[in-house]
Amino acid sequence: MSLRTEPRLITLEGGEGAGKTTVLTALRDALLESGHEVVSTREPGGTPLAEQIRTLLLAGDHEPPAPETELLLMFAARAQHVRETVLPALRRGAFVLSDRFTDSSYAYQGGARGLDPAFIAELERRAVGIRPGLTLLLDVPVAHGRERTRGRDVYPDRIEREQDAFFEKVRAAFRERAQAEPGRIRVIDATPAPERVVAAAVGALRAYLETLR
Amino acid sequence: MSLRTEPRLITLEGGEGAGKTTVLTALRDALLESGHEVVSTREPGGTPLAEQIRTLLLAGDHEPPAPETELLLMFAARAQHVRETVLPALRRGAFVLSDRFTDSSYAYQGGARGLDPAFIAELERRAVGIRPGLTLLLDVPVAHGRERTRGRDVYPDRIEREQDAFFEKVRAAFRERAQAEPGRIRVIDATPAPERVVAAAVGALRAYLETLR
Repeated sequence: MSLRTEPRLITLEGGEGAGKTTVLTALRDALLESGHEVVSTREPGGTPLAEQIRTLLLAGDHEPPAPETELLLMFAARAQHVRETVLPALRRGAFVLSDRFTDSSYAYQGGARGLDPAFIAELERRAVGIRPGLTLLLDVPVAHGRERTRGRDVYPDRIEREQDAFFEKVRAAFRERAQAEPGRIRVIDATPAPERVVAAAVGALRAYLETLR
Repeated sequence: MSLRTEPRLITLEGGEGAGKTTVLTALRDALLESGHEVVSTREPGGTPLAEQIRTLLLAGDHEPPAPETELLLMFAARAQHVRETVLPALRRGAFVLSDRFTDSSYAYQGGARGLDPAFIAELERRAVGIRPGLTLLLDVPVAHGRERTRGRDVYPDRIEREQDAFFEKVRAAFRERAQAEPGRIRVIDATPAPERVVAAAVGALRAYLETLR
């Protein structure tokens, strides 16, 4: 079983406070303007069952999952998301815009929790089977991102409550993946003001759409 | 990463209506009589988080999980169960008696749902890491087992509502595993009256305990 690239699957990745929400809206609008159907979705989640798995993953009020449990719950949700939401949309010609996808598992469960990337790759091949045509990585120094989320996250979830050292590992793993796959993953510097970050992200999307014609 | 056999981990396997509940109680009593601490547990489940995953797995009122989703949820629950319940009990010298364990994934998600046993073996090595010293397989023809559960299961769960052809595959996969590992898996004919099945199971347990002295 090998990974198939889906040109119309576009994913947005990044750490905390990178500004994903603002950029997602702008990307969706740019796709709609060019006349495409757009399915906006997120991970973990994107189907009713996968959203229930998300609740188990992010709730902080019960026993914390072991790293292996966290990884398998992430991929259980992703397997469902791909089959029930992503593939049906791609099949009818829509673009799918996902707030996080498999790269996040490599960064969070691999880079930061220390699980073997070979195991993650096996889960990706066996349970996901597809990868995005374009991934935008919003990159911001950890301290800067954390500063932005301060005050906003009144009730941070279990993962948001991790320490800076954890998010440094997440960032390093994301950047490493971008270096290894420069054709698919475009790094967007998310340090400037939101309008400049949005302009860079939309520019990268438009350039990508040109290559699909 | 290879599988370590845990002599004090004892599992009970079998299809629907095999009489697992009655046998479990008798096995627990036999272990207690010989002076051991016994932790009785079940899969999917065995920790608060794993029981929540069980609820997602067996509920029939929402979107059914894809086979891959079902498999990964089973192993997410199992990874948690092993780390939070099974290993701590084994470490303090207790016996752990589990109603289902990894063999059930080979039978239900492998044999019956058709997922690749090599993938299941990879999950077992990576996320479980241990296997039982003794497994008792309660074997009963599907029609006979279904006859027993009739009337009892007023609200059958999502898996109990499968058709006979599904349970034939489950049974065949269990028997195949028993043939491949006759040293670990003892097949108990569960067709006779409960007291005879219990006697055979307790006899097999006592014979096994002798080998541990």
